[in-house]
Amino acid sequence: MQNIRKISDSTIRRLSLYYRALSNSEKDGYFTVSSQDLAKKERLTPAQVRKDLSFFGSFGTRGLGYPVKELKEKIGSILGLNRSWNVALIGVGNLGSALASYKEFQKQGFHIKLLFDNDPKKIGSSIDGIPILDIKQIGTQLKQNKIDLVIMTLPGHTAQGVAEEVVRAGVKAILNFAPVSLKVPEDVFLRNENMAIELEYLSFCLKNRNNPGKHA
Amino acid sequence: MQNIRKISDSTIRRLSLYYRALSNSEKDGYFTVSSQDLAKKERLTPAQVRKDLSFFGSFGTRGLGYPVKELKEKIGSILGLNRSWNVALIGVGNLGSALASYKEFQKQGFHIKLLFDNDPKKIGSSIDGIPILDIKQIGTQLKQNKIDLVIMTLPGHTAQGVAEEVVRAGVKAILNFAPVSLKVPEDVFLRNENMAIELEYLSFCLKNRNNPGKHA
Repeated sequence: MQNIRKISDSTIRRLSLYYRALSNSEKDGYFTVSSQDLAKKERLTPAQVRKDLSFFGSFGTRGLGYPVKELKEKIGSILGLNRSWNVALIGVGNLGSALASYKEFQKQGFHIKLLFDNDPKKIGSSIDGIPILDIKQIGTQLKQNKIDLVIMTLPGHTAQGVAEEVVRAGVKAILNFAPVSLKVPEDVFLRNENMAIELEYLSFCLKNRNNPGKHA
Repeated sequence: MQNIRKISDSTIRRLSLYYRALSNSEKDGYFTVSSQDLAKKERLTPAQVRKDLSFFGSFGTRGLGYPVKELKEKIGSILGLNRSWNVALIGVGNLGSALASYKEFQKQGFHIKLLFDNDPKKIGSSIDGIPILDIKQIGTQLKQNKIDLVIMTLPGHTAQGVAEEVVRAGVKAILNFAPVSLKVPEDVFLRNENMAIELEYLSFCLKNRNNPGKHA
């Protein structure tokens, strides 16, 4: 395998897509899959697929394709999906509640162990068996429960202060849904989820559909 | 501008990111921005930024950078953000309710005009002034309200049937949050939003953080 530092954000994203496509191929009973198959499923070129997969050593045999199970396991291991991660979610509004019971997280090894809110009516109750704790307990609870990853679904104006508490508790990865740019130290990984981005992709397609080509 | 067909999915995604970064630069009072600035904000290489932007003609002056306002408007126009889109959302559960009041959509020109559900307790009420209609009315209402784009936040087992009704009503773009692969005709643009993907990016970072390089 080449040095992990050479892998771009876009490649990591595509690995997630390949992982899903391979899981589906495995479920459907396929043993091998070609770069053409993978490309078609994800609207990429076969050359792009081959280039991405070449980062991880020589997979596949010309004319035979890639071994589904082996490649899926390899990509899963690269993405860190072959182990389980302890997750906490902060902010149990509509979005937080939806994510707390989102089954796809658990499937990939992301186990939501704790929920936090500041609403006395919510504290002490639970969602799908996951307890809702007082947001004031973040510092102690994140440490005690060895939380790896925090999902923040808070109103924008409270997000920075809470993020700082999360960082102080030693958490190194935050997925932020609040519509603000958070500032965190360099050793903390931060992703901002903006759900308008997929809509923008679709508006691009609608806007350009009278042009010839793959988006037409 | 070169032919739109040469623009890859990843590039369109990055355009959304550049659009956000440029909006922020504009708000902060900057008139020009360098490819280094844009790259740093989005964790890309300056060469990638220049390559992406070169698709859209010659922008920027060597040593002076890109004009913020002009480039933002150009990218906005390419993404179809310089106009408004009529959106309907189907499935007013926790996630649907959260998206119905998600302010980022409106900011980019995506106006949610209608909500649909099959729960008699919800039908007839509204969220932020948007009426919740009976899911049985999809066919007539989508047409009457000239809906361009549909967001589906439904349980998986009902999604395919509803998608077919949406397609019959003439809608050409669907953003699907249901954890199933929908089948739609070739002339309908479909995006599946999977919120586990950003978590997988973070687990990749955590897993590989002891490796040297940009993800360390």
